[in-house]
Amino acid sequence: MPVDPNSAIEVTAYRWVPEMARGFVKDMRVRWALEEIGLPYRVRRVSGAGGEKSPEHLADQPFGQVPVLREPGLSLFESGAILVHLGGKDERLLPLDPAARARAISWVFAALNSVEPITQALMLTRRTSEGQPWQAEAIAAMRPFAEQRIARLAAVLGQSEWLEGRFTIGDLAMADVLRAVPDAELLAGHPNLAAYVDRATARPAFQAAMAAQLADFDAEPV
Amino acid sequence: MPVDPNSAIEVTAYRWVPEMARGFVKDMRVRWALEEIGLPYRVRRVSGAGGEKSPEHLADQPFGQVPVLREPGLSLFESGAILVHLGGKDERLLPLDPAARARAISWVFAALNSVEPITQALMLTRRTSEGQPWQAEAIAAMRPFAEQRIARLAAVLGQSEWLEGRFTIGDLAMADVLRAVPDAELLAGHPNLAAYVDRATARPAFQAAMAAQLADFDAEPV
Repeated sequence: MPVDPNSAIEVTAYRWVPEMARGFVKDMRVRWALEEIGLPYRVRRVSGAGGEKSPEHLADQPFGQVPVLREPGLSLFESGAILVHLGGKDERLLPLDPAARARAISWVFAALNSVEPITQALMLTRRTSEGQPWQAEAIAAMRPFAEQRIARLAAVLGQSEWLEGRFTIGDLAMADVLRAVPDAELLAGHPNLAAYVDRATARPAFQAAMAAQLADFDAEPV
Repeated sequence: MPVDPNSAIEVTAYRWVPEMARGFVKDMRVRWALEEIGLPYRVRRVSGAGGEKSPEHLADQPFGQVPVLREPGLSLFESGAILVHLGGKDERLLPLDPAARARAISWVFAALNSVEPITQALMLTRRTSEGQPWQAEAIAAMRPFAEQRIARLAAVLGQSEWLEGRFTIGDLAMADVLRAVPDAELLAGHPNLAAYVDRATARPAFQAAMAAQLADFDAEPV
């Protein structure tokens, strides 16, 4: 089991988040990658979403978020950067061939800069228009941007198992973004993408990471 | 001058975009990085924003966007991934020390996954609510997310010249995101960030990249 209090690698996680966010906090990406390569990590729990951020946490993570990865001589933030860093440790996450490696990193950025911002904008629109008479209009106006990106991704994936022939951190990031899409219909229209997410989340490493994240939450906010 | 029709490195750019987008299309990031290290590139112009995407373009760039970087044996998309790739060629973009390198890559991801999605959500909100009676309310509800991120970034930068002591692709990405912030007031409240953007865009490499992007647009859509 990669969670080991004596590991030299430390991952931050929130003590508490609302029920609906559990299993979706971004330390999942790092736990998942570490599970894929069997690398033990210890967990440092910090105050959660919306809570007061400690100066120590803000020094490690400029935006007061998780995850931060610490290992001797290094403190890293941003899940994407941590994935690239861990990928450099083990070719099961990132191929050794330079071109294949660069392509896999392209897909990490595609997940985090071409897909997630658009699905996140839809989520933020829903959240910021809650209870307003114009909510349905605002969501309907934002939705086509997400539909278009998802449709393009579905076309590129086609019937392939993974985005570049074999599982990489590009798939890990993309599947993690897709499983959080705030509107089930967006994926439902693309069975190949839904199957891709199922395939990724059926991996034992994902399942172990999920169990570990869920186990770390307190029942009540602190 | 890095633009050279005989270079082995090719960067895609749009033939045409609306006036207000000129100078902000994302091949700027790649041109800028190439100018920083004096590496020549040729330009392949493709149909622009909103235009019909060619099958060849979609094969290179899943979302029909720019830039794509091609060099012998490699076709890469996503500006962030291209920056990381180019950073690997020259320590003026990315330090050789592994920890400093990983930190610089953290800032590329911070720019593209923690700052740009939030400022982009604000831009999309403005665009999708255009002419609606609820536009002001929708923008006001979305704005605090951007304010918070920008304020945290300003606090972390403080009076430093660059994010990690010296200019890296992290600064290049962050400055490029900040100069496109769709609401001038967001930066105006943080003179250190405004000065950071001025410092970055005053670099000769930025100026050369800007001149090259502007020179490549046709006057009328094709």
